[in-house]
Amino acid sequence: MVQFSTNKLRISSGMRPTGQLHLGHVVGALKKWVALQDQYQSFHFIADWHALTSDYADTSKINDYRIEMMIDWLSAGLDPQKSVLFVQSAVPEHAELHLILSMITPLGWLERVPTYKEQQQNVADKDLGNYGFLGYPVLQAADILMYKANAVPVGEDQVPHVELTREIGRRFNTLYKETFPEPQALLTQVPRLPGLDGRKMSKSYNNDISLSDSPEKIWKKIKGMMTDPARKRRHDPGNPDVCPVYSYHKIYSSEETKQVVQRDCRTAKIGCIDCKNWVSTSLVKDLTPLLDSRKKYVSRKGDIQDIIKDGNNRAAEVAKETMQEVRQAVKFSG
Amino acid sequence: MVQFSTNKLRISSGMRPTGQLHLGHVVGALKKWVALQDQYQSFHFIADWHALTSDYADTSKINDYRIEMMIDWLSAGLDPQKSVLFVQSAVPEHAELHLILSMITPLGWLERVPTYKEQQQNVADKDLGNYGFLGYPVLQAADILMYKANAVPVGEDQVPHVELTREIGRRFNTLYKETFPEPQALLTQVPRLPGLDGRKMSKSYNNDISLSDSPEKIWKKIKGMMTDPARKRRHDPGNPDVCPVYSYHKIYSSEETKQVVQRDCRTAKIGCIDCKNWVSTSLVKDLTPLLDSRKKYVSRKGDIQDIIKDGNNRAAEVAKETMQEVRQAVKFSG
Repeated sequence: MVQFSTNKLRISSGMRPTGQLHLGHVVGALKKWVALQDQYQSFHFIADWHALTSDYADTSKINDYRIEMMIDWLSAGLDPQKSVLFVQSAVPEHAELHLILSMITPLGWLERVPTYKEQQQNVADKDLGNYGFLGYPVLQAADILMYKANAVPVGEDQVPHVELTREIGRRFNTLYKETFPEPQALLTQVPRLPGLDGRKMSKSYNNDISLSDSPEKIWKKIKGMMTDPARKRRHDPGNPDVCPVYSYHKIYSSEETKQVVQRDCRTAKIGCIDCKNWVSTSLVKDLTPLLDSRKKYVSRKGDIQDIIKDGNNRAAEVAKETMQEVRQAVKFSG
Repeated sequence: MVQFSTNKLRISSGMRPTGQLHLGHVVGALKKWVALQDQYQSFHFIADWHALTSDYADTSKINDYRIEMMIDWLSAGLDPQKSVLFVQSAVPEHAELHLILSMITPLGWLERVPTYKEQQQNVADKDLGNYGFLGYPVLQAADILMYKANAVPVGEDQVPHVELTREIGRRFNTLYKETFPEPQALLTQVPRLPGLDGRKMSKSYNNDISLSDSPEKIWKKIKGMMTDPARKRRHDPGNPDVCPVYSYHKIYSSEETKQVVQRDCRTAKIGCIDCKNWVSTSLVKDLTPLLDSRKKYVSRKGDIQDIIKDGNNRAAEVAKETMQEVRQAVKFSG
């Protein structure tokens, strides 16, 4: 077990184990986490309790999802010697901190979180009317404050949650005792990777490229991808700036290829199939190390269990320390 | 440490450590608990997390209140060899079960709990707008279900909470796996003990007889008690059925005294001072063993700590077993 670095700032961030990861997760989160793990002392957790907020009705696959998620993380380059990689529910201190923070969090703060009403309006196939779903950001605050995180790598839509965490932490510090630093949202400038139909990539939209897709399947999916709708026939000129395929070029292609596409799509010198072929090739090339790594890990599930256990222990070590401080602060230390 | 009885039904019930206990607690809860402890395997907890729902802003005295409460319990006759007497926050499994139950509890169920709106309307000096206050009954459900209680000794006003606990437990059983029995409210027929002014006895109304009052102070308080308002002068006849003092006779006086009061108050043969003197004498006599016991325990605070520790361990033993089942049921057993 490696020692915790004391002179590094800390980050904490998790991911809900609700199914097979896709490319959106890799680009939107995992690549950032990997890039940050040398600079920060990172805590990353498989947020299985969070998965219950919307998926409480069917937990039959959650054990598989946990293992698969850890395999995806490791394959993407997260290093258990550097980052603390663990399962949220294996550190029950999160539940205790959540309970204590729930006592000082005004209902109004939660009701005004933008994603709350938004999801209640937009998600039709799941029941989001439970007490725990409203309290989602309180549990997030516990996840972040538990590790005294200085920063939280998030997407734009999660910034209000980090703000709420700051408010809750500040309220705790004021009511009881200075305990938690104020975590900042760490927004990294990664271009957004849309789904195959141009909407947000999501398994439930059936527009995703999964980490279990073969190169052949990836090519088949890219070939069927939506393009600039104004370019209906081969000789119509196109506009890469509105084409989802070009969003992929931005992430996966060389400067040279991007220049060629920008120039030759607008004059219809290249067709969409050429363009898609290039991006598919670079994407597969970029993904290959992850997929190869994945294959190795899949055959070593026992090791994965050990890695998770070790991560759980390291997280618990910090969590126990924090909770001791918290209990003392609220005069609950017996 | 005694063994748990396996052939006894279980009860679970707690009390919030928000200050010195008074006679209302003894009559309304402690006497019942003592009477039930041979028949049931009892779990009684000092509900310190519950105290935070309304008293989060000042926790400075909570440690003292915990100790004082255990002293009051023991002095009233609760036997740590029979009942499991413990501190809620010392068994963090309660927080974990609370979190899991929060995921399956509809907000509407909580918003419709009668005491919720009622307290929000009536309690002006405390902030009851927090997430944790709304979730109070979820935490109660966790406290009860954790010990697989078959019954919960409560007052009328708490019956809806026991109903809600049944609903939550049933929902868990249906969604995941048959785990919890359905607890019934155990209403015992004890006459209500009003405060000195006829309202509900409460420290905040300043109408209580505290367990730390001396016999002299008790007599002084009883002497100043409200009586039948129609009996203004010594020679006015009175009606015991509407007199708060007679409520005390019902609990503390002999059949003979009650008959004398019923007869001679209505004819103004006896005055209020006579009547109060009788009840004060019986009350002090009834309380004396408790107060004597109290004095002994107060001088043995180290023993109290040991009794609490032992109770915490015994409660944790059961809680750990239940949580293992719960985690397996929701597929969170790793």
